Formats: sequence, C-alpha cells, structure tokens
Amino acid sequence: MKTITSLDDVSFDANGWVPAIAQDASTMRVLMLGYMNPDTLRETLETGRMTYFSRSRNQRWLKGETSGNFQQVKEAFVDCEGRSLLFLVDQTGEGACHTGEFSCYFRSLHDLDQ
Amino acid sequence: MKTITSLDDVSFDANGWVPAIAQDASTMRVLMLGYMNPDTLRETLETGRMTYFSRSRNQRWLKGETSGNFQQVKEAFVDCEGRSLLFLVDQTGEGACHTGEFSCYFRSLHDLDQ
Repeated sequence: MKTITSLDDVSFDANGWVPAIAQDASTMRVLMLGYMNPDTLRETLETGRMTYFSRSRNQRWLKGETSGNFQQVKEAFVDCEGRSLLFLVDQTGEGACHTGEFSCYFRSLHDLDQ
Repeated sequence: MKTITSLDDVSFDANGWVPAIAQDASTMRVLMLGYMNPDTLRETLETGRMTYFSRSRNQRWLKGETSGNFQQVKEAFVDCEGRSLLFLVDQTGEGACHTGEFSCYFRSLHDLDQ
C-alpha cells in the first residue's frame, strides 16, 4: 500500500474543506460523513481522534468532546483524486449519531414516507 | 424495491448536490464518494444502478456506462440530517476505481509525514 508524505495530495475545496467518511473498524458500518480543513486533518492524524470542522458552527469539532463518544483512528485513506478521506475508527460510547443511533445512516430511502 | 416520489428529506447543497457514499455490500469496503443531484438520485433509486452527477463534467454520470463496472443498489440510506447518502451496492466488474483498484481508497494517510 502506498503512503503519501504531504497533505498536498489532499484537495480541499474552495472553502478549504474535504469530506471525511468515518467507518467503524469492527462492524464495518459507515458511521457518518463530516468535513475537515487542513488544521483538523492534521490534528486527527496527530492525535488519533477524529476531529472535524463544523461547517454550521464554523469551528473545530472534536467528535466526542461533549458526548464522550470519541472516534479513535485505526486507518486513514485518501481517494484516488484526493477529494475525499476515509477513516477506519473505533467508535467509543454508544455510537456516532446525536440521535443515539450507532450510525447516522439509519433511515432507509426506500422506506421514506411518501 | 419501493420507488420514492419525494426527496424532501434530502438536503441538497447550494449547487443542488449531495454527497453519496458507495459501499460494497459483500466486502463492506467503502468504494468511492460521488455526488448526486435530484435527477440522478431519482434515477439511481428507480433503476437500481448508481448514477452520479459529475461535477467536473457538469453532467449525469452512470457509473459503469463506459467501463462496464456498474454498481447495483442493494440498500439506500440518508443520514440523520439529510446531508449525505449511503448506498450498499454490488460492485460489478473489476472495481470502482478508474486506476483499476477495487476501492478508490487505496492510498494510506496513516504514515503521512507531518
């Protein structure tokens, strides 16, 4: 597996953000999609704790800082074009979602009430 | 498969796009992150074939139309805030990535030099 040596291979968008997928390493369930800027990506890789950039609050967001449900990074990948990131994590606590669900993807599009 | 007729629970961004994660249903590997607009999301749910909106080409993009490596939809989910989609798919052919890799996430950031 190739490794990269610089964040130059990550393409941040015009706002300075890149989408970051968190996947639970034990269940392989996709937990959530957040965004990172260069600072929070560096912090995530240095600390091993998923640290996003909250677009709505326009600030750093250490996942679990309030809830205790931290995400510990096991593996980190960048896609072929550098436009998105994938993190395999150990989800601590009850789950990733603020609703109490383990994954934020608990609503099926096929079951949407029409 | 139930076809949806309302996408009110999906929040498209200012450009009319929503990020869509494709995850291989058998290996559970995350394959890629693309984008959909309302038309290509509807087409995806109706046809059962992942159909993205190419931001670079500014047009509909039926995954596999050129390569033959279609992605057949097994399950479709929207996140708790409606801001991203997750599709469990059967990845046909050799894989999802134009490089020939099965997943677009084949480059590790783990050993990234700070």
